[in-house]
Amino acid sequence: MAEFTVTPWEVSGEIDYDELMKKFGTSPIDNKLVNRISKYAEPHFMLRRGIFYSHRDLGKTLDEYEKGKPFYLYTGRGPSGMTHLGHIMPWIFTKWMQDVFDAELYFQITDDEKFLFKDGLDLEKAREYAYENILDIIALGFDPEKTHIFLDTEYIHHLYPLALRTAKRITFSTAKAVFGFKNSSNIGEIFYTSMQSAPAFIGSELGGEPTNCIVPCGIDQDPHFRVTRDVAPFLGYPKTTMMYCKLFPSLLGGDKMSSSVPEATVYTTDTPKQVKKKIGKALTGGAVSVEEQRKNGGNPDVCMVYRYFSYMFEPDDDKLKKIRDECRNGERLCGQCKMELTEKINDFLKKHQEKREKAKDKVEDFMLRD
Amino acid sequence: MAEFTVTPWEVSGEIDYDELMKKFGTSPIDNKLVNRISKYAEPHFMLRRGIFYSHRDLGKTLDEYEKGKPFYLYTGRGPSGMTHLGHIMPWIFTKWMQDVFDAELYFQITDDEKFLFKDGLDLEKAREYAYENILDIIALGFDPEKTHIFLDTEYIHHLYPLALRTAKRITFSTAKAVFGFKNSSNIGEIFYTSMQSAPAFIGSELGGEPTNCIVPCGIDQDPHFRVTRDVAPFLGYPKTTMMYCKLFPSLLGGDKMSSSVPEATVYTTDTPKQVKKKIGKALTGGAVSVEEQRKNGGNPDVCMVYRYFSYMFEPDDDKLKKIRDECRNGERLCGQCKMELTEKINDFLKKHQEKREKAKDKVEDFMLRD
Repeated sequence: MAEFTVTPWEVSGEIDYDELMKKFGTSPIDNKLVNRISKYAEPHFMLRRGIFYSHRDLGKTLDEYEKGKPFYLYTGRGPSGMTHLGHIMPWIFTKWMQDVFDAELYFQITDDEKFLFKDGLDLEKAREYAYENILDIIALGFDPEKTHIFLDTEYIHHLYPLALRTAKRITFSTAKAVFGFKNSSNIGEIFYTSMQSAPAFIGSELGGEPTNCIVPCGIDQDPHFRVTRDVAPFLGYPKTTMMYCKLFPSLLGGDKMSSSVPEATVYTTDTPKQVKKKIGKALTGGAVSVEEQRKNGGNPDVCMVYRYFSYMFEPDDDKLKKIRDECRNGERLCGQCKMELTEKINDFLKKHQEKREKAKDKVEDFMLRD
Repeated sequence: MAEFTVTPWEVSGEIDYDELMKKFGTSPIDNKLVNRISKYAEPHFMLRRGIFYSHRDLGKTLDEYEKGKPFYLYTGRGPSGMTHLGHIMPWIFTKWMQDVFDAELYFQITDDEKFLFKDGLDLEKAREYAYENILDIIALGFDPEKTHIFLDTEYIHHLYPLALRTAKRITFSTAKAVFGFKNSSNIGEIFYTSMQSAPAFIGSELGGEPTNCIVPCGIDQDPHFRVTRDVAPFLGYPKTTMMYCKLFPSLLGGDKMSSSVPEATVYTTDTPKQVKKKIGKALTGGAVSVEEQRKNGGNPDVCMVYRYFSYMFEPDDDKLKKIRDECRNGERLCGQCKMELTEKINDFLKKHQEKREKAKDKVEDFMLRD
């Protein structure tokens, strides 16, 4: 079995997502669950394709929703750099959830986390990135009436009491076992998970009654939410419901698009030329030569370009299948795929960048202040 | 050598204060330092009598003060119960420092600390105690223009960024070595010391330039401030200056008046009758019989009543010496001392309680909000 590591702060190796689900003890989002959601809307392609693939308590929360109990959404962003496509993917899904279930959304920007965990990043810089990231969030079209964005350091007066209540219930043993802290970990890192728990309860707190909360996010965040869920009942809140997605792939292979390798990453602010260059160098499942590929076909299962179509840029299942089939039978070469993907990304970014520009005037409509 | 333990959260055994100073590595407030202070005012009896007996960097900070560099003061209160005389003692000294040096004072109320460290105490209750404690602080006559009181959970938006900067510099190893944390310690307890460091820097932060800070407090708080001082230079602030006092004795003997033994503790809200009863039962240095005491005298050095005179209720050195001499030579019996102390405490409390009542209308004049 291949080795891999997935924590909120480190992802390495080739992730076996089924194995990870077992290891974390989460449940699959199976056809039955997807069908239940289809009562409310055509299931999002990220559900149909098993990109949002695992959960905790989703069935229970849908049961209660059917009986008239609403839920709110909570997701987040660690502002350690500019936004790339890997960040946006789960936000697109979160917006879909907001639209379908008409749900309030709390969007946490963890400037404290990134400051604590990243050497050389100061709070001011984290806040600058936060602002840039917020523009991307707003550009995705979330409902300003129902979307509440906050930076931890700015909204701390509401978060801190909740974080304290959480922290009092988490021993160092637990934190060490869950996150692997060492003697050299700083004491802010050790405390931080309480700050990520707090927003799971904020809707209950502000609304004055215990309310279900669904968190759509990458499965690498599960360690935090295991802790959140363990503590919730002691604080009088329902256990947080989780919807986990797979991590957006790096263009050069590997399981998570990372800001630390800019050429493996498409940023929302990239120019068409930059995108073309990056996609041009992407890892594909192509054969060693054109002749070979025409003869034996390519392998979409290991191809990053195909994965980009699948995860984000080809929502149409039939069209995706066509790409897959054409690749397999050698009709379609990597150049064509790269060209089409580049076009789709640049189409997306052109519109996104326009909306991102307009978002600059809308920030205060979204920020949770008091 | 007798065993004793002094940490910010536990004091037990008979404290050898000289030994403690050596153990912590603090310096004595010697005659030379007291004389330097006498340039500004007749030294407070707590300085003359070695009650404020130890320091870090006081000489250096006075040097800089002489050269025109002001300092601000910072002290605090953990709101785990009603205020007793043991709390008030260092505050009286702090007010004297404010008056003599015309200094700003930041007064931290650590509702977060008490919530995190005390089983069964909820945040709401800690805040209720905070309010009660604040009335006592105001009643002591601090300058409302220069005194800034805040609860951690209410002033957190200013404290948190400073606490984060501190926390990033403190490893779990250090915190464990300094405070003795265990695997069962909660992660809020581990983080907390950063919150107690933050106000040491708040005057520099709000004033826009690095400024000296003097913290008058019980020597049991030294572990926190060792950490604060170690971190300060990395954050661009001067190392915090410390003035440490001995702990106010319990009426029943033992080195710290504690709220957990109400009969050993005089609260600021006690009635004259309650005070009389408590002082009546105080541990003294009296002999086994009146005859014996008339003949051989008493021992003021082990007498809690005498210590109360010395620490707080007889500021006049001559009068204190007279009590001491009369006790030693058998002229004065315990009953007389108890009666006189009761009277002095009740006189103090009568006025204090009146001012405490008036303080209810002044709270907002003192609170640091924005």
